[in-house]
This record gives sequence, C-alpha cells and structure tokens, in this order.
Amino acid sequence: MLQAIHKKLDELYPEMVDIRRYLHQYPELSFQETKTAQYIADFYEQLAIPYQKNVGGNGVIATLKGGKPGKTIALRADFDALPIQDEKNVPYKSKVDGVMHACGHDGHTASLLTLAKTMKTFRDSMPGTIVFVHQHAEEYAPGGAKPIVESGALDHVDAVFGTHLWATTPFGVLQTTKDVFMAGTDRFEITIQGQGGHGAYPHETKDAIVLGSKLVSDLQQIVSRRLDPLETAVVTIGVFEAGTTFNVIADKARIIGSVRHLNTAVQEKVIAEMEKIIQAVCAGNDAAYTFDYVRGYPPLVNHEEEAELVLKAGSKVEEVHTTEEVRPVMAGEDFAYYTIEKPGAYFFTGAQKEGNYYPHHHPKFDIDERAIPVAAKTLITAYFEYQT
Amino acid sequence: MLQAIHKKLDELYPEMVDIRRYLHQYPELSFQETKTAQYIADFYEQLAIPYQKNVGGNGVIATLKGGKPGKTIALRADFDALPIQDEKNVPYKSKVDGVMHACGHDGHTASLLTLAKTMKTFRDSMPGTIVFVHQHAEEYAPGGAKPIVESGALDHVDAVFGTHLWATTPFGVLQTTKDVFMAGTDRFEITIQGQGGHGAYPHETKDAIVLGSKLVSDLQQIVSRRLDPLETAVVTIGVFEAGTTFNVIADKARIIGSVRHLNTAVQEKVIAEMEKIIQAVCAGNDAAYTFDYVRGYPPLVNHEEEAELVLKAGSKVEEVHTTEEVRPVMAGEDFAYYTIEKPGAYFFTGAQKEGNYYPHHHPKFDIDERAIPVAAKTLITAYFEYQT
Amino acid sequence: MLQAIHKKLDELYPEMVDIRRYLHQYPELSFQETKTAQYIADFYEQLAIPYQKNVGGNGVIATLKGGKPGKTIALRADFDALPIQDEKNVPYKSKVDGVMHACGHDGHTASLLTLAKTMKTFRDSMPGTIVFVHQHAEEYAPGGAKPIVESGALDHVDAVFGTHLWATTPFGVLQTTKDVFMAGTDRFEITIQGQGGHGAYPHETKDAIVLGSKLVSDLQQIVSRRLDPLETAVVTIGVFEAGTTFNVIADKARIIGSVRHLNTAVQEKVIAEMEKIIQAVCAGNDAAYTFDYVRGYPPLVNHEEEAELVLKAGSKVEEVHTTEEVRPVMAGEDFAYYTIEKPGAYFFTGAQKEGNYYPHHHPKFDIDERAIPVAAKTLITAYFEYQT
Amino acid sequence: MLQAIHKKLDELYPEMVDIRRYLHQYPELSFQETKTAQYIADFYEQLAIPYQKNVGGNGVIATLKGGKPGKTIALRADFDALPIQDEKNVPYKSKVDGVMHACGHDGHTASLLTLAKTMKTFRDSMPGTIVFVHQHAEEYAPGGAKPIVESGALDHVDAVFGTHLWATTPFGVLQTTKDVFMAGTDRFEITIQGQGGHGAYPHETKDAIVLGSKLVSDLQQIVSRRLDPLETAVVTIGVFEAGTTFNVIADKARIIGSVRHLNTAVQEKVIAEMEKIIQAVCAGNDAAYTFDYVRGYPPLVNHEEEAELVLKAGSKVEEVHTTEEVRPVMAGEDFAYYTIEKPGAYFFTGAQKEGNYYPHHHPKFDIDERAIPVAAKTLITAYFEYQT
Repeated sequence: MLQAIHKKLDELYPEMVDIRRYLHQYPELSFQETKTAQYIADFYEQLAIPYQKNVGGNGVIATLKGGKPGKTIALRADFDALPIQDEKNVPYKSKVDGVMHACGHDGHTASLLTLAKTMKTFRDSMPGTIVFVHQHAEEYAPGGAKPIVESGALDHVDAVFGTHLWATTPFGVLQTTKDVFMAGTDRFEITIQGQGGHGAYPHETKDAIVLGSKLVSDLQQIVSRRLDPLETAVVTIGVFEAGTTFNVIADKARIIGSVRHLNTAVQEKVIAEMEKIIQAVCAGNDAAYTFDYVRGYPPLVNHEEEAELVLKAGSKVEEVHTTEEVRPVMAGEDFAYYTIEKPGAYFFTGAQKEGNYYPHHHPKFDIDERAIPVAAKTLITAYFEYQT
Repeated sequence: MLQAIHKKLDELYPEMVDIRRYLHQYPELSFQETKTAQYIADFYEQLAIPYQKNVGGNGVIATLKGGKPGKTIALRADFDALPIQDEKNVPYKSKVDGVMHACGHDGHTASLLTLAKTMKTFRDSMPGTIVFVHQHAEEYAPGGAKPIVESGALDHVDAVFGTHLWATTPFGVLQTTKDVFMAGTDRFEITIQGQGGHGAYPHETKDAIVLGSKLVSDLQQIVSRRLDPLETAVVTIGVFEAGTTFNVIADKARIIGSVRHLNTAVQEKVIAEMEKIIQAVCAGNDAAYTFDYVRGYPPLVNHEEEAELVLKAGSKVEEVHTTEEVRPVMAGEDFAYYTIEKPGAYFFTGAQKEGNYYPHHHPKFDIDERAIPVAAKTLITAYFEYQT
Repeated sequence: MLQAIHKKLDELYPEMVDIRRYLHQYPELSFQETKTAQYIADFYEQLAIPYQKNVGGNGVIATLKGGKPGKTIALRADFDALPIQDEKNVPYKSKVDGVMHACGHDGHTASLLTLAKTMKTFRDSMPGTIVFVHQHAEEYAPGGAKPIVESGALDHVDAVFGTHLWATTPFGVLQTTKDVFMAGTDRFEITIQGQGGHGAYPHETKDAIVLGSKLVSDLQQIVSRRLDPLETAVVTIGVFEAGTTFNVIADKARIIGSVRHLNTAVQEKVIAEMEKIIQAVCAGNDAAYTFDYVRGYPPLVNHEEEAELVLKAGSKVEEVHTTEEVRPVMAGEDFAYYTIEKPGAYFFTGAQKEGNYYPHHHPKFDIDERAIPVAAKTLITAYFEYQT
Repeated sequence: MLQAIHKKLDELYPEMVDIRRYLHQYPELSFQETKTAQYIADFYEQLAIPYQKNVGGNGVIATLKGGKPGKTIALRADFDALPIQDEKNVPYKSKVDGVMHACGHDGHTASLLTLAKTMKTFRDSMPGTIVFVHQHAEEYAPGGAKPIVESGALDHVDAVFGTHLWATTPFGVLQTTKDVFMAGTDRFEITIQGQGGHGAYPHETKDAIVLGSKLVSDLQQIVSRRLDPLETAVVTIGVFEAGTTFNVIADKARIIGSVRHLNTAVQEKVIAEMEKIIQAVCAGNDAAYTFDYVRGYPPLVNHEEEAELVLKAGSKVEEVHTTEEVRPVMAGEDFAYYTIEKPGAYFFTGAQKEGNYYPHHHPKFDIDERAIPVAAKTLITAYFEYQT
C-alpha cells in the first residue's frame, strides 16, 4: 500500500506546488494567520474529513480514522510567516508588503494537506488514525504548539512526527538526531539604571555606558568559565542602547539579548550566573537594574525509538538517498512541546535549491519544491512503520 | 569718573532687566540668531554709535572712541540660546517652543548694551576706545568667536575682556584664574564595523557589541594610566548604539563621546592613545573602524596680568564682596580664541539666585538679575584699569 | 576457551595484587622508569616470552604468537608514576619520597603481565598474536606512546586496545565512546614585555599588569564568541606572575596556561585567535610579547568498530554489569597516538573504591584491586572477539 | 651677619664633603640607623651643643639658643639609607652590601651638622633658637617623623623648615610650592580567594586569575570616572601573583599596589571605591577577599607664608639663580607630619650632577656635592627671615 500512497503523492505534485505558491503569495504573521487557517479548514471541508478550528488559537486539527485498528499518530505542519520583505523575483512572490514565507511553512502546509487528500482515498485499508495538526504561530514565542498541547489535542495520540523543509540541506538528504535536535531559545532584557550628568563631571554620575560595557565583557565568562565545557550554550547581546548626546553621561543602558541551550540544567545555570554578574556589576557602582528573562521554546528532544523509525522511513522513500544523524542545530522550534508530551521525532527534509540558495529567514529564501512530496512520503512511511 | 559710571549703570538697571527679559522671551539658536543681531544693531543705531553687522556670521561689533587717547579694548558678550524647553514659571518665560536662554547670554547682552549706552554719555572724557563685541553662536562648535577673530575684528585691539553670569556662584563673588580657566572640549564618533549574523552562531560573526564594550573599558586606561597624573582630562562616552533585535548579532556599533582637557599636549596625547586603542581592539577581531575626532574650542587661558587686573577691578565694584582665584572649570567657552589672539581675561560674575537655583543648561535655569550691572561695572572698571 | 582464560585470571588474582603493590611501593617518574622496565623485562624473561627492551625509550614490548593463525593485536599498559607525595595509610604505601602511582599505572602493568602469563598457557590453541605494549612516560608530554609508534612497534599490528582503571567509575562498569574519548591538551606561555617604572608615573610606563589583565579578560571571548557553540574547548590561565613590589610598575607579565580540545580544527582555531588577541592587546600599548604554544597529546579518538567490540567484550565479562557510552573526558592520554596509527579503542574499567574514594592524581588516590582482573578479562575478550 | 654665615659655610665645604662621604660609605637601613645616630650625637657632643638621643626612635635633636631673643625654628635633616646595591664607581662607594644612600640623606646630614657648627660660632649675636632635627627612618613607613612629633619635640617650635637635595633639579635652582608639595602614599594588598581545581573543569572552580584580572581592569575606573577630573590620584597595581602550574586553576590571587594622592578627601574616596569594586568583583563569582589598606605618609602641604619666605631666602643665596614654584611631586615625604603640626615649608635644593645623572633610588644615584652648602645657606637664611 505504501508504494501506492507514494505514487499517489507524486501524482498530486502539481497541486502541492499550487497550494504552496498560493500560500506563498498570501503570507500571514504569527497569531494573525486567520485566512490561512480558513484556507486549511476549507480544504478539509471539501475532503469531508472532520476537523476542528481555533485549536489553541488559529490552529486547525483534522482527524482521519482508518478502516483498520491501529495507533493514533499526529503529523504536524506549521503555517505562519515572517515580517520579512520578499526580495525574490518569481511569479509566486509575496503579495503582502513586509510579510513573507521565508521559512517554508507554506510547503509544510501543502505537504500535509495533499497527504490528507491522499490518505482519504486509502482510508478503508489504513490502520490507525492520523491526526493532522496544522499549527499557527511557530515563529513567535510563546508560539502555537503550547496552547495546542494544552487544548488536549494530543491527549489520545500515541506519537507525533513532524518535519522541516530545510533549505541548507541538499535534496534527497534526511537529517535527524536520536536525542536533542534543536536548541532552547530565550530572550532577556537588562536595564542598568545609573545616574546621568554632564560629560565633564563623571565623578558626580554613575556612568551607565561604562557599567553596561563591563557587563557585556563579564557575561563572556559564563560560557568560557562557568559551564561544563562539554555543555553547549550561547549568550548573545543583540542590542546595546544608551545615551543621547556626546557630552552627557547616560543614566540608563538597555541591553537585550538571547540565550540558547540544549538542556534545562544549563539554562537555569546561565540564568543564575547572569543574575549574579549583573548584580555584581551594578553593586560595584551602586547602580540599580532590572533583569527580565523570558524562557522561550525548550530544546526539541527527539525520542530515540521514534527517531530510529524516521531514519528507517526515510530509507524507504525513493528520493531519499541519505539519512543521517547530525549534531544539534542551534535554532529553536516549538515542536519541542509535542515531544515533551508524547513520544515523537522531528527531522529535516533536504530542500536546498540547486545553484544559489539562501538560508532560512533570508529575503531571497526559497525551497526546492520537489521536497514537498518527499516530506509527505517520509511522514506517512513513518506512520505505517509505527503501526507495525 | 568710574563712580559716576557705576552710578549711571545703577540707574539703567530697569532697562537692563527689560532688555534681558525681552531677549529671554525671544531666544534664537546658535547660527540662527538674526533677529537678536538686528535688535543689537538697532540699539547701536539709536545710540548713534558706529557698528558693523554680520561680522564672522551674525556678530555685531560697535566701536566707541573716547575723547582722550588710550588703549583699544574689546568687551565681549555672546547672544545665542539653546535647544532646551523653558520650564520656568515666570512672565518672561521663553515664547519660542524648545528654545531657551538657559545660559544667561541674554543677560550678557543686556549688560553690554547698557554699558554702551552709559559710556556714550561719558565719551568725551573717556580715554581709549571700547570695542563692543556681540558674538553669536557660542553654544555650538565651531562657534562664532573664531570667525570673528578671523574677520580681523580684534586686529587693532590691545586687550579683550569678557564675563559670564554664573548661576552657581553667589551674587557678589567674582571668580577667575591667572592661567587656564575653562576646558577644551572635543567631540568624537567611533564606528566599529564587525560582521553581523544569527545570535546562535557567534563564531561566524565579529560581534560589534562585544568589541564596542571592550573599547569602552579599554578607553578608561587613558586617564588612569597614560596621562601624567597631574594633568587633567575627561574621556566620556555619551552614546553607545548597536543592534536591532535580541537574537541577531550586531555588525556595527556607534560610540560617540567627548574629550575635555586643559592643554593641547594632553589633547594630542589623548587622541593618539584613543586611536591606538581603537585600532588594537578592532585588530583583535579583524574588525574595521572609523574614528572622527573633532577638535572643539581650545582651553580658555587667561593672561596673568589681565586676570590680576580683573581681580583688582572687581574689588572696586561695590557689590563685589569677594574676588577669588579658582580651579579651572571643565566647561568650554569659545572666548578661548580671543585670548589666543590677544591679551585678555575672562571671569565669572556671581549670579546665583537666592533659594532654589539651577545649573546652566537646566530647563529651570535663571539668574539673579542684579548681577547684570555688576558685570557691566566690572568690565568697565577693568577697562579703566587697563588705561592706566 | 575464554571461560578457561577468565578462570585462570581469577586464580592469578593474588599475584596481580602482589605485582601491583610491589610496583606501588617503588614508583618511578616518567622517563626515569628504568627499574620498572627491568622488572617487566625480567617477568617476560621468566615466562620465556620474547620481548624487546628500550623501545622508544624505556618501553618494553613482548610478543606471544598463538598456535593458530589470526590477527595481531596490541594490548597496552603504561607504567610511569607521578611527582606526588603518597598520603595513604596502607602497608603498600610508596617508599619513594614525593613519587607515587597516583593514577593506577601499577594496576595496568599487573593486569597485562598476568594476562601474558595466562595466555602463555593457552598459547597453542590461541589464534593470532598478542603484542604486549608496556609503555613508559604517559604522564609527561611528549610522552612514550609517540616514540613507540615511531619505533615501528605497531607496524604489523591489526588493532590496538587499552584500558584505564578509573577510580571515579564504579566497579563493574565499563565506559567508552565510539568517537573522541579523551581531550587534546596543550600548554602555552605568554610573556608581555611592557615598560616598568615608578608607581607614581604610570604615563611613563607600559603597565604589564594592566595589559596582562586585559589579556586574561579578552581571552574569554575565544570560547564564548569565536568557537562554534557545539564544539568544546577550555582555555585556562593557570599562572599570572608580574611585579616585585607595591610601588613599582611591572615591566613584564608571565601568563601560563593550558588549552583542551576535542579536535584539531578547534585547536588550530584557538591558537590563531589567541595569537590575534595577544597581538592586539600589546599593540594597544606598543608592548612586545612572546607566545610559546606547545601542542601536547592529541585528542584520543576511538574507532567505532573497535569500540563496539570493546562494549561487546565487556558484556561477556562476569563482573561487568554495565557497559556504557559516555561523553568525552577532558583529561588527556597519549594512547591517542596508537589510534591515529591503527584501528583501536580505549576504555575505562571501573575501579572506584567502596566508601571514600579520591580522584586520579590525589595524594590519597587508590583503586579497587578487583578491577585488575576485570581489565585483563575485557582486553583478552576483545582480542578474541577481534579474531572472529 | 648672614653674609658672614654664608662665608663660613663655604669654608666648611671640605668638611661637609668628608662627612657626607663618610656616611655614604656606612649607610644604615631605616629603623636600624644606630651608628649614624651615634655619629651625629658625637658631633654635637664635640660642639658642646646640648642634644637628645633616641627621640621617637633613633632621632637626635640638638638645640642652639641664640644670644638674642627670637623665634624657635626647627631645621630637619633625615639620615637613613635604602636597601639598594651601590653600583657607582667612586672612592666613597657604599661599604655595606645591599645598602646605599641612594636618596641623598647623607648630604642632608652633612649640611645640617656643618650648619650647627657654623652657628655655634655666631651664637651670641643670633636671635631666637635653632632646633636641629636629625630624623631617622624617612624611607620606610610609618617613618620617623610621626614619633618625633609625638615625642613633643616640636611643641615649642614656631616653624619648621627642611630641604631635599634633588638630583633631577639643576644646581642653582630652588623649587617649592605654596600648597601641597608632595604626595600622600599608601600601600594596599588584596587577596582574592576563589576555588581552585583542574584546568579542564572551570565550572567547578572560581577562577582567581580571571577574577583578579577583572579587578585590575575595573580599578582603572576610579581615576577615570569616579574622581573629580581636577583632582589627582594614582592607583597602581605593582604585583599580581597567582597560580602554580599551567593546568591547575588558581584558588588565590594576590594583588599588591599603591595609591598616591594630594589630599585626604581623595584618599578616602579612592579607598571607598576600591572596597566597593573589590566587593563587587568577588560577589560576581561568590569569591571571598581580604583588603588591607595601609595609609602611609599624608601629602606634604607647605604653608603659604613659610613657602614665600623660603623663596625669598633662596633669592638671597649666591648660588641660587632660580627660585620657582612648581607642580606637586608625586613622591612622598614624611616631612608632611611636621607641617601638619606647625607652620613650615619644604623645598628642593637643586643637586643634579653635570653630565649623566640618575634619579633618586637608582643604583648609580649621586649628587652634586656643591648643593650641600646651598641647602645650609637657604635654611639659615629662611631662619633669619623668619626672625624679622
């Protein structure tokens, strides 16, 4: 049956491209993706597959019960876009100013919808139940995955799989890990409140720029000295803003940044050391501070068995010539919430365009559309593997 | 005669206040002070004292030749205002939004104009010649003093005197020094050009915020280690701007600041050490930089004899109960250009308001108007002392 | 036959303990271990197993050819001791002042010698050839492994195995990895040559302590910003020496430290960034420097197949209840040179004492001697596995 | 009479040189200068001028009461030497290994003794009383001046004068100030107590070298940012000692240095800011510290009238062609205690050797001996001026 399904998916390729390109032209930002949600709902309406709208926000979840007994497995595709101006020169370029599918979620959606259409035709002989999870708001914390999990949508699910069309991995390559796959990503904002004054009288002030600069330097010690060298973390200061003019000493410095990590123990250690260092820098000049730390998506940790199953599934897809275990990727992904809740695995489906290609979130980002059916085939193959 | 002049000035006190308050309500920014210049010109027109407009810009210079032989002495008052919103609650509050005489130049002008009016009546018996220098644009480098000097206005002058109504010095106190009196003030702007990138991949970037922070810290060594401890300098970073968002590593940092010094050797040493340090910080990460250093007003150096004469003059003014030599003030003043060109001295005329008072450039800045005639009396007394 | 061998080794346990305790009482420092080498040679002499002395220094290599054809496999034990004062209170305490087997090499030797004695009796039915590599000077770079490899001793060997009795791993546990297992360890020494002078005149000097301190801080950026966050490295400054008295500015600072890494690319990147940073710090004050970097042992990288074979072998040893793959250990080991030359794997044999125990290189370090036969059994089992 | 005194001093020049060279060959360290004290006492014994030994330690004080009424004035010379190896190649080179009159105190003593001898002959016509203060232990805090003052030796004195033969001021030049003349000099020692450990496991330690380096950098802000730019201070780290070997993280760093300042307010501000910064640096990594700060000699502040009198006196000495007010000197001097107690002034008598010359405390230091009578003449002239 699997071969028949793969064949059917190949036949639907033109529709996949149509769907993807349509969505590409009408991208919507995270948490505002209502038209896309309606588009998805309409698709299931037409297929007469039961679905639910507004799951945990703009999420859409459809359920296809097979004719034979089996396990219930969720397959997830996200569908939000980014606040980036599309700079590609293609017919399907974004028609929305400043908004763009620069991460491939349009392809994810096309893949999952056509897979649903395909499986509708194989329903009777299909074992188990597929839960098609169309998730909104992956790009912007706190994201859509968390409220979808909290809505109970995964309660009766046995496992969950998902994939990302990955523009820097060659076509035909499938990548995953058996453990942590993607990083936890947090955001912080520090305000140092010193005391301003005339540039000629530093001794009457608490110079927020000097304090902030010291802080940036001191924070380097967290990764270099205070974490186990075998652990991984990044502490990046992305923004330093202080002062208004050349001869006035700034009273306030705003320092904004991000922390990336692969496990919670490291995350908590980083937070504790940051607080200690900020406190000390300010104490050294009787300055005050605020420190807001927002824990973002947790690290995405694959389950070993499900990851092995994905690798096996990949090897059964014609176009996939390579399946490989890779090092974790420092980008974040709220699929993390699903594998905290249920067994599951996430993988990359190689979608690198031939010739020049651009990384995710780039204004010229694009994918090799041939990867859309490959994603669908791998997901459904994993589904069948899981039934056995 | 001096006593008679002092008495006459006392009589003109109401007019001084009128002039000062009129100008206070119609302040004009540096290099835009055309109406004030016209007001001054009109005043001399009415007095029938010969004057010249547009000297070195908006400057107005009037010349009163006495009936007796003697030296030619310039007395200077500046007349520009500041981009500050007047927050005082007084009838003579500024009527120009966002512009304010927050430094007392209105009082300087009132003082010099009424002194001219006074001396007109004593002209016949007056020895020597008074050159009334009404200077525009003191507040904003490169200032008005330099082009006035370059116009040749001081060429035939034997000496130059000037005073600042000083809001933090008590009424009745005259302050000056016999050497350097006010600081040289420069402006610099540094741009560090690193290489931006994703917050998760620091190794692929040259982090401009980390480099800039290091630079701010390293620059502290100039004053602490590289200058003679007996010399005076301030290196202040007033602005640090870098980055746009929390998870992107900034490619560029903009660092703007000021240097204050009391002599040129120190100034040149500071510049050389800054360049060396900036270069090194950037070399340490293969980053590029720009370093624009704008030499502002030089230090204002009083001539010893002229300063002594000012102290003596002060002691002959009834309201002045204290004349004192003080330490240099770290603020700058383009009167500096006059004493580079000619013998001269600058001094502070105490104008601190009773009760609450505010420093120069404060939105609630005001002066004790009784200091206006004191300034005039001291200047004219110095003039007469110089003739003997 | 394997069971018979294991049984024979159990019978030899008292002799193992005797040998180990004898060596423990007469430890010799790296490159000076001539008596220990003679002891080993005498042992083989008595067994009538052919051996060679002075291999690559004090190394002793014995060769036992089995009665059946098969592969040639080297088994390695090191035999040098450390410059540490033995503080244990046991009858077999070191009799050499300041020298101690604080790392378990005495146990390694006891294990390999009794294994040779055992295999002598099973020689006829033994397939292949065992090369017993008794290596000197593991504790002190450049070490004994390199010259042994260069002597050609491994030229005809098919694979090489070795183990470390590991005092912090519980008895009955075997640990290894299928990739990098132990760290590369390097040593560096930096001298900053500034210019000294009187403590009151910093501007006439180039303060080596201020420069050195800046360097220590700046070096933190290598790990925090300039390496891929997924890579592992440690840059430790162990010594900072500068200055002689409180009121004299130091002309020179000596900074000594170590770098640890898990692959050569990281090592070379660290060296390059260090040089760049040192150069920049010194350029910032026209100071000179020297930078001596001594590449020590490379990372020890296990070969995947041989590591799997070790894990399998462990599972066949009665006392071994757990075999596990672990994260790399940041300590170094010159066994690294063997697996650069030939397929092979290194592993830890759990030898933690019950109750209180101390880490390697501690003055009270000791091992659970029951681990000595476990090491021997695992090595010989791996040998047999390799033959099949 | 003054001319006669000056003439007499000229006649005694050979004896001055003899005394100076004798003392130069037998230098004694601070607080150990008993033979020198005896030498001085013997001199007064022979002159039959009443004296007292063991004043405040090894001090010797002689009193010569004139035949006429007048004021009582103390003239001070110090007589200790330094722990420096004499490297001069002269007949009068130090005969004591490692001890040397490298600061000219031998000359001070020769000057004062021959002045006493001279004045003995002029006693009857001399107004007032001379108190010859031969002070021990100027080179080593807490010094001899303090206990001498505490002994009451100055209680009945009207004023006190002293001079230093100054090897970097040309012969014939007299230098002083009317206010602060020499710096206050303090010593501090900081110990940072972190936690040591293996160089490969920084996260298990508190790296004292990283903390100490941060401290050195942060301390730079005291002078650059926390003191009034018009004030003067030097914070010098002279010693940084930490760690024993390259791959062990140091648990402790010892940081020793000095502070120089020109007034007590600055001194106290520096101490307070140091404490704050040390505390903060340690708090940032939960490390402990000790901070011992030893206040040394206070700044030497001349009294204005006495300084003017010295300048006048200098102008009456034939060899003195220049008397000048100079900037303060950052070196310290415990003469400071005398002018805290009584009116007085200290000055430099130019004693620079022609050709090559070396600064104070240099192993090749020497003086132009012709300055010895100049010092005596200036002191006695100031004495007479004070009587009028």
